[in-house]
Amino acid sequence: MELRDQIALFLSEGQAERLQSLLNELHPADLAERLNELDEEQQAAVLHSLSDEVAAETISEMEPDQQAAILQVLGRERAGGILEEMSADDVADLMGELPPGQARELMQLLDLEDATDVRELLGFPPDTAGGIMTTEYISVPVSIPVQRAIEELRRMASEVETPYYVYVVDEADHLVGVLSLRELILAEPERPVKEIMRTQVVSVGVLDDQEAVAHVVRRYNLLAVPVVDGENRLRGIVTVDDVMDVLEEEATEDIYRAAAVGESEQDLDAGIGAAVKARLPWLLGLLFLSLFSGKVIEHYNGLLTAAGALSFFITTMAGGSGNAATQALTVVVRGLGTGEIERNQIWRVVWREMRVGMIIGLICGVVIGFTGFILQGSPWIGLIAGLALFINLTLAKTAGTLVPFLTVGLGLDPAVASGPFIATITDTTSMLIYFGIASAVLHYLGLA
Amino acid sequence: MELRDQIALFLSEGQAERLQSLLNELHPADLAERLNELDEEQQAAVLHSLSDEVAAETISEMEPDQQAAILQVLGRERAGGILEEMSADDVADLMGELPPGQARELMQLLDLEDATDVRELLGFPPDTAGGIMTTEYISVPVSIPVQRAIEELRRMASEVETPYYVYVVDEADHLVGVLSLRELILAEPERPVKEIMRTQVVSVGVLDDQEAVAHVVRRYNLLAVPVVDGENRLRGIVTVDDVMDVLEEEATEDIYRAAAVGESEQDLDAGIGAAVKARLPWLLGLLFLSLFSGKVIEHYNGLLTAAGALSFFITTMAGGSGNAATQALTVVVRGLGTGEIERNQIWRVVWREMRVGMIIGLICGVVIGFTGFILQGSPWIGLIAGLALFINLTLAKTAGTLVPFLTVGLGLDPAVASGPFIATITDTTSMLIYFGIASAVLHYLGLA
Repeated sequence: MELRDQIALFLSEGQAERLQSLLNELHPADLAERLNELDEEQQAAVLHSLSDEVAAETISEMEPDQQAAILQVLGRERAGGILEEMSADDVADLMGELPPGQARELMQLLDLEDATDVRELLGFPPDTAGGIMTTEYISVPVSIPVQRAIEELRRMASEVETPYYVYVVDEADHLVGVLSLRELILAEPERPVKEIMRTQVVSVGVLDDQEAVAHVVRRYNLLAVPVVDGENRLRGIVTVDDVMDVLEEEATEDIYRAAAVGESEQDLDAGIGAAVKARLPWLLGLLFLSLFSGKVIEHYNGLLTAAGALSFFITTMAGGSGNAATQALTVVVRGLGTGEIERNQIWRVVWREMRVGMIIGLICGVVIGFTGFILQGSPWIGLIAGLALFINLTLAKTAGTLVPFLTVGLGLDPAVASGPFIATITDTTSMLIYFGIASAVLHYLGLA
Repeated sequence: MELRDQIALFLSEGQAERLQSLLNELHPADLAERLNELDEEQQAAVLHSLSDEVAAETISEMEPDQQAAILQVLGRERAGGILEEMSADDVADLMGELPPGQARELMQLLDLEDATDVRELLGFPPDTAGGIMTTEYISVPVSIPVQRAIEELRRMASEVETPYYVYVVDEADHLVGVLSLRELILAEPERPVKEIMRTQVVSVGVLDDQEAVAHVVRRYNLLAVPVVDGENRLRGIVTVDDVMDVLEEEATEDIYRAAAVGESEQDLDAGIGAAVKARLPWLLGLLFLSLFSGKVIEHYNGLLTAAGALSFFITTMAGGSGNAATQALTVVVRGLGTGEIERNQIWRVVWREMRVGMIIGLICGVVIGFTGFILQGSPWIGLIAGLALFINLTLAKTAGTLVPFLTVGLGLDPAVASGPFIATITDTTSMLIYFGIASAVLHYLGLA
C-alpha cells in the first residue's frame, strides 16, 4: 500500500497511535513530500499529530506557497507555535514570498524577539549573505573560561539547531575569535576562551553575494561561516546546507544562461507566460543576428547557381563552426566560473584552444573534404569544403575562447556568453569564409 | 610586497620567527595556494617550519601530483609524519593517482592501522560512496550510557577531524542508531545511549554512486552520511565538504555534456591531446549528421535557382530551430537532473513546451516574416519564412522536450542529450519544412 493511502486509512479509522508510529519513522524531508499528496483536511490531521518541533521541521522542507497554505489551514494558535520553532531565516523566506497582508498577519503570531530577527533578515536582499543567513548561532564573551563556554553551549543547544562553532565576541559584539565544538571539548575547562580560540576568523560581509559566500564555505571546508557588518559586528551565520542550495541555484543559472534561457525562469512550475518572457528576447535577438549570415549567402547566390553542389555544405559549415565554438566557450566559461582559469591566463588559454582547433579542424577538414569529393564527385568541392572547415573550426575555437574573457573584461559574468550566441556569430564568419574560398577557387578554375 | 616575496625574504634572511608568525596567520587552503608559487627548496623550508598537523592540512588542499612532489622533497621521515596526520581518504586519493612504485614506497611510511584503512579505501571505485568516504568517524557500542559515550567522543576527538555525529553499533558492527553532538550534550548523563539515539538512520551503500550520495546529504541536510556494506555494517562516512566537491564535479560534467564536450576533459590542465580526444568524436559525428540537412538543401537546388531570395533564410531557419530546441532541452534536462521534473510528467511537460513553442513561434514568425517582406520586397518570401519559422519553432520546442525523456527511457543520463546534437537534428527538419513550404507556395504561384 502506498504511504499516502496508509496515512489516509489510519486517519479515517481514527488509529491515532499507529499513525503516530508511522509518522515517527519518516524523516521530515520525506514527510513533507508525502504531505503534498494529501488533501487539506488530511494534511491538517497529520500535522495535528506531530509536535510543534517536528511540524516545524517538516514545513521548513516545503515551498513557501505550500507553507502558507498549510499554516492557514492549521489556524492561528497552532501556526504561531510552529512558526516559533522554525528558524528565523526560514520564516523570513516564507514572509518574503507572501502577499504583504498575509505576511503581516503571520508576523503577529511571533513573539517580539523572533519578529525582530525576522524583520531584520527581511531587510537584506535575498541573494546576499544577509538574505540567506540565520540569526541562530552561539556566541560567548571573550572574557570567560572554557567551562563557562561549554555551559553556555549546553544552554543554547536546545534553541540552536546547528551548534558547530562557538563564536567569540567582545563587549561591542565585534567578532574576535572562533572555536569549533571539537576544540572546546578538548580544552582544559579552566583555561580562558581567549587563549585557545582561533583569531584568524574567516567571515563574510552582510551584503556579500551569495555565490561568493558559497565559494568561501567550499574553499575553507566550513560547516558555517559568520556574517559580519561593516564594523565587524557578528550579525548571523550561513550554514553549509544553505550553501549547497546556493551552489545548485547558481549551477542552474549558469546552465540556463549557456542555453540562452533567461534567468527569470527558475523552475518548471513557472507559467507559460514566464517561460515565453524568459526565452523570447534571446531567440528573437538571435534570429535578427542570423540575418547577417543570410545576407552573406544571398550575396553569393550567383555562385550557388553556378555550382549547386556548394549548397550541400552550408549547414555543415555553419553547424560545425557553432558546435566547435560552443565546446571551447563552455570549457572556458566553466573554468572561469570555478576559478580554475584565472583572468590573466587569457593568452595561454587562447593559444591552447587555437592548437586544439587546428588539430580538430585538420582532421575534420580532411574527412569531410574527402566525403564531399566522394558524394559530389568533384575534387574541387571537396577541397573547398575541407579547407573552409579547417579555417572555420580553428577560428571558432579561438572565438569561443576569446568571448568569455571579453565579457569578463566588460565586467559581466562570463556565463552570459551563451552557446547559441556564439553559434549565431560563427554562422556569419563561416559563410564568409566558405563562400570566399569557393569564389576564389571557382574563379581560378574559370567556373564562376 | 607579495606574500610569495615576503616568504622568500624571510627564508633568505633566516628570520624563522617572523616566517612562523606569517604562516600562522594563513589558512591551510591559502597557504597551499601560495606554496605552489615557490620553488622546491622554499617549499621544503616553509613546510619544515610547520607542525606535522598543519603541514598535513596544507598538503591535503593540493592536487595529488603536487602532493607527491612535495613529499618527495621532504624526505622519508618527515613525509611519514605528515601522512600519519592526513585523513585516510586523502591519503587514498593521493595513492590512487601515483605510479604503483611510488605509492608502494609511500605506503611503507604508514603504520599498520593506517595502511590497512588506506588499502581498504583503494579497493572501492573512485566514484562510489566507498571511494569518497573516510574511515575516521566516532562509533560507540549500543549498550553504554550517555556519559561513557561523551568520554569516548572526547577521547576520539583528537583523532577525528569532524565529530558531528556519534554512530551507534551493535557487537557485530551493524549500524543501529545515530546521535548528533547536540543530542548527546543535551541528554542526561546516566541514560542509556539506546534510549535517546535515533534508530531511523539515513545511510548509503558502499557502492552507491557518488551523485546519489550527494543527493541524500542535500535532501536530509546532513553534515555526514554513514556508509554501510551489504549487511548494514558501518564502514565509513562521507562528509559534507566532499559532497560539495562532488556537486561541483557533477555540475561540470552536465555542463560539458550539454555542449558535447566529452567527460574525460575535466580540467584545463589536461593536455591538447586529451582535449582533442574529448571533443573530436562528438564534432565529427555531428558533422556527418549535418550532411542530412545538406542533402535536403541540395535536393531543392532547383528551387534556390528559381527564387534566390530563399537562400537568405537558410541559416536563420536552421539556427533559430536549433536555439529554440536547445532552450527547451536545457530546461528539461536540468529539471530531470535536480528532480524538479519527474519522469512520469512527460506529457504535462511536452504539452507545456508545445504551447510555449507555439506562442514564441507565432511572434517570431510574424516579426521575421514581415522583416523578410521588407528586405526582399516579396510578400510571398515573407509568408514562406514566417510560416516555416512558426512550424519549426513549435516542433523544435517539442523535440527538445521529448529527447531527454527518451534518453531517460533508454536508461541513459538525460544530460547526454546535448544542445549541439538536438540542433543538428533540427537542422534537417527545419530545412525539410522550409523548402517543403517554399516548394508548395511557389508551385501554387506558378513560379517554380
